[in-house]
Amino acid sequence: MRFTSETTSNGVSEQLFVIDDIPGVLWSPVGATGGRPLVLLGHGGGQHKKAPGLVARAHHYVSSRGFAVAALDAPGHGDRPRTEQDERFVAGIRERAAGKPVGSLIADYNASLAERAVPEWRAALDSLQELDHIGTGGPMGFWGVSMGSAIGVPLAAAEPRIAAAVFGLTGREALAEAAARVTIPVQFLLQWDDELVPRDSGLALFDAFASREKTLHANPGGHVGVPAFELESSQHFFARHLLQSDASDTAG
Amino acid sequence: MRFTSETTSNGVSEQLFVIDDIPGVLWSPVGATGGRPLVLLGHGGGQHKKAPGLVARAHHYVSSRGFAVAALDAPGHGDRPRTEQDERFVAGIRERAAGKPVGSLIADYNASLAERAVPEWRAALDSLQELDHIGTGGPMGFWGVSMGSAIGVPLAAAEPRIAAAVFGLTGREALAEAAARVTIPVQFLLQWDDELVPRDSGLALFDAFASREKTLHANPGGHVGVPAFELESSQHFFARHLLQSDASDTAG
Repeated sequence: MRFTSETTSNGVSEQLFVIDDIPGVLWSPVGATGGRPLVLLGHGGGQHKKAPGLVARAHHYVSSRGFAVAALDAPGHGDRPRTEQDERFVAGIRERAAGKPVGSLIADYNASLAERAVPEWRAALDSLQELDHIGTGGPMGFWGVSMGSAIGVPLAAAEPRIAAAVFGLTGREALAEAAARVTIPVQFLLQWDDELVPRDSGLALFDAFASREKTLHANPGGHVGVPAFELESSQHFFARHLLQSDASDTAG
Repeated sequence: MRFTSETTSNGVSEQLFVIDDIPGVLWSPVGATGGRPLVLLGHGGGQHKKAPGLVARAHHYVSSRGFAVAALDAPGHGDRPRTEQDERFVAGIRERAAGKPVGSLIADYNASLAERAVPEWRAALDSLQELDHIGTGGPMGFWGVSMGSAIGVPLAAAEPRIAAAVFGLTGREALAEAAARVTIPVQFLLQWDDELVPRDSGLALFDAFASREKTLHANPGGHVGVPAFELESSQHFFARHLLQSDASDTAG
């Protein structure tokens, strides 16, 4: 793991790093020392580790709760080279853009992305836990919707260090089997009028999680219309599960 | 409006009152002066204004946010006399208890309860707003699930003083039409394995609300198994909509 730059803004440190040629970013409180919970952010399709929504989310989690937050560029995204398969996928999306549904194409591609991305995330966790201001003791959370869930659901199924996750904006195709192996608390975001994910498919994926605690948060609107207040809701969810002393644990 | 008793516990004042022969209870911070948001609690079928869940919820809203909180005994419930119709309903439930579905019976009864209860609530709001520590300026919220929603949804459709509501654990039967006239922000609780409310009926009622902001919170488990953390979630929801300066408004 090699850090390439550090900037600070509003009390939040942002460190760019590279692990095994994979570019990532780590946000944490300026001057943080000692172990703390780590929340992983999985970006959406066509986005990257520093997409504006991810940066805002990371700052909110760091500022409100003192978490460390990390993101990686997914395979074929951000500063990473595209493989032939990545290029074929983009071409396929364009060819079918004239009204044809692309759901199964996206699901197939995302499944292949996940095969590449899950081991990358697990290796990154090893390196991140070696840092003094993260450490091995704290629990980890994962937040990622749409393609972030396509990678995150199999990651959570495989990786016992992840203790709580926010998923959503995706359906049962290619993910129901992995969801059935996820037993950690899950908050699942569904957009009631999602133009990319049929409502029944999203509901079926929520149904598929084996988690004893799982909450579906469904809101009106399309794929990119998740309301801003769900950021706050996810923060409370992570605080409840990653901070042992959080008041929310006992308020119910 | 006549107050009949006052007790205090942990900084929360509990005042029993009677308005037009209807018994109610008002919780507020001890020594509160000046206007504040008022949250109305609608209890479930067979329960009453001081059911343990309502008392705990009232204390939490008062202590965490300084709200005033009020509940009334619904018609035929708590300290109120049962009419012939109330008795027939109870008898009907018992007769059909041997395996027959009682959903439509409950829906019919609840619809008739709502016809009686909505004007009672509206009259109570007039009296409650005359109190110095509530006042006419603050917004009102409504929380009520199951029978609490059977009364609350028509109440919110009729009463413009209610600015935000938590509903749930009920289906479209007898309520879809009123829901289509509700435009305020709604948080809607659905139990994924509700033995009294078919999942599709609950989803259809959520769908029926005309509100621009509405969020479905679905959790595993049966009718009485709403997770404790939903209390905290409802508190954040009311704070966001009833307290103008709440930080959650701008955190997203």
